[in-house]
Amino acid sequence: MAKIAIIGAGTIGLSFAALHLAKNPKCSVVIYDTRTDLQEYVSQHLPGYLIDADEISCIRRLSFSYSLESAVEGATIVQEQGPENADFKKSIWPQIEQHAPEDALFWSSTSGIPASEQNQNMKDRSRLMVCHPYNPPHIMPLLEVVRSPQTSDEVVERTLQYWRGLGRTPVVVKKECIGFVANRLAFALFREACSLVSQGVVEVEDLDEIVRGSMGPRWTVAGPFKAYHAGGGEGGLRSFLDKIGGTVEKCWNASDEGVRKSNIKIGEVWQEDICQRAQDVYGITDTAERDRKTKSILEAVK
Amino acid sequence: MAKIAIIGAGTIGLSFAALHLAKNPKCSVVIYDTRTDLQEYVSQHLPGYLIDADEISCIRRLSFSYSLESAVEGATIVQEQGPENADFKKSIWPQIEQHAPEDALFWSSTSGIPASEQNQNMKDRSRLMVCHPYNPPHIMPLLEVVRSPQTSDEVVERTLQYWRGLGRTPVVVKKECIGFVANRLAFALFREACSLVSQGVVEVEDLDEIVRGSMGPRWTVAGPFKAYHAGGGEGGLRSFLDKIGGTVEKCWNASDEGVRKSNIKIGEVWQEDICQRAQDVYGITDTAERDRKTKSILEAVK
Repeated sequence: MAKIAIIGAGTIGLSFAALHLAKNPKCSVVIYDTRTDLQEYVSQHLPGYLIDADEISCIRRLSFSYSLESAVEGATIVQEQGPENADFKKSIWPQIEQHAPEDALFWSSTSGIPASEQNQNMKDRSRLMVCHPYNPPHIMPLLEVVRSPQTSDEVVERTLQYWRGLGRTPVVVKKECIGFVANRLAFALFREACSLVSQGVVEVEDLDEIVRGSMGPRWTVAGPFKAYHAGGGEGGLRSFLDKIGGTVEKCWNASDEGVRKSNIKIGEVWQEDICQRAQDVYGITDTAERDRKTKSILEAVK
Repeated sequence: MAKIAIIGAGTIGLSFAALHLAKNPKCSVVIYDTRTDLQEYVSQHLPGYLIDADEISCIRRLSFSYSLESAVEGATIVQEQGPENADFKKSIWPQIEQHAPEDALFWSSTSGIPASEQNQNMKDRSRLMVCHPYNPPHIMPLLEVVRSPQTSDEVVERTLQYWRGLGRTPVVVKKECIGFVANRLAFALFREACSLVSQGVVEVEDLDEIVRGSMGPRWTVAGPFKAYHAGGGEGGLRSFLDKIGGTVEKCWNASDEGVRKSNIKIGEVWQEDICQRAQDVYGITDTAERDRKTKSILEAVK
């Protein structure tokens, strides 16, 4: 029986607790938090996260701890979602390290404080990494597995294995960067959305409908690179950018009514590298399969 | 029986022809193109677009024309997807106008040449507007209905009505702008994707998985404004931006390794306008319903 210690009983902590309990029948979960009504609070809110799960079996494997030491003792995984505060995180990991087993995995759910900063006071900095969820983690498959320069390959590998075993989508982010990848991408689109609405081009609710009727379902079936690679036909992403790279660049430069010029340009070195990679990993894509899947998604959302 | 004239038998033309034939049993479709093997070409390729449709009924209502004049004669809708060339479009609409009925709707599928440019030689410039699909239109629900300053409200209204009748998602773009809205949004995210890959933060195929496991399904259920509005809880988008606006702005400024600063900033006037609009149209959102729909989409894509 694996013991998973959840540090911090906020909404992310409860969602992760529910995910482990529901998808991993061979685990017990202990929740640690400094709030005095912890047990009452969790008992009240956790059932809301246990949709389609065997609630009785889940609750049976759940316990509480008011001491960090006893929470992490014997744990196979320690997953932290405390306050988003670097000092807090820098001080808690050495304590966890002191009491947890030597081979326990250490994960932070932070959305912005990199492991290389959190691990500064640890004896073994190779043990810690970020597992950043897309909220709420009991529903959304993505986990951004962000390694620090110190994180060991073995820790990365065991982390990927665990999440894959639960049917999730863990993805390695190779370099720590501001916002990690998912939020950087989402906020880039959100920025353009705010900019277009503020210019009077489109209404808030109409922009939402535009995304729901186009990119949403498309990117559920294939991510942006694969989608444009398919759009280029046999020539793939390379053909796509040869054909409409000019339009793409015009759009990039049009952001903010032309005030802001894109720093990355069509036709530069990055483009060939990315096109080659898309060709290597995707080859010739099957648009008939894409269309079938898209249809079933559109049916499901109705 | 409505007569729909499709001008141009490329992939968009065939996809639209299939859409009308399959979803509107009360229409006939005539395809006009200058290619000499038109009938042979269409007969060979159209069936691929008629998935789940009654092929025999569809083909029975299909005809061909090698003359623009006879194609648009008696038409209720003329839908153009000829070459992406302003001169071509400026010269074809006056010819269409001369031979089509006075109340026929005129739509261009252009992805970049606005109606206000295409309509310059027309007698009645109020008749033309852009209906820009998200490829392929026989699958994707979105149609960006882009009005020019001259387009009449009546033409917009009849256009929306037609597409809604076919179960599609027509959305009004109020002001012509470079790339219209869907491509502007998609290319903004694509730009950040290229930038992150080129910096070595993430691999092409991993970035695709990130989007498929997060924004794709999320934005299929709710567009970005509604999604963040829900993320803010009872306080909606306003709360969301109060809480994490700083992170959002850091991400905006981090694009291109900090070389490019965002021209639109958190805390400016646009923000309150957008938050108020989100509050007005969405009120308090139901995250349980969101989660249920997300689950069914994730099931469908498997």
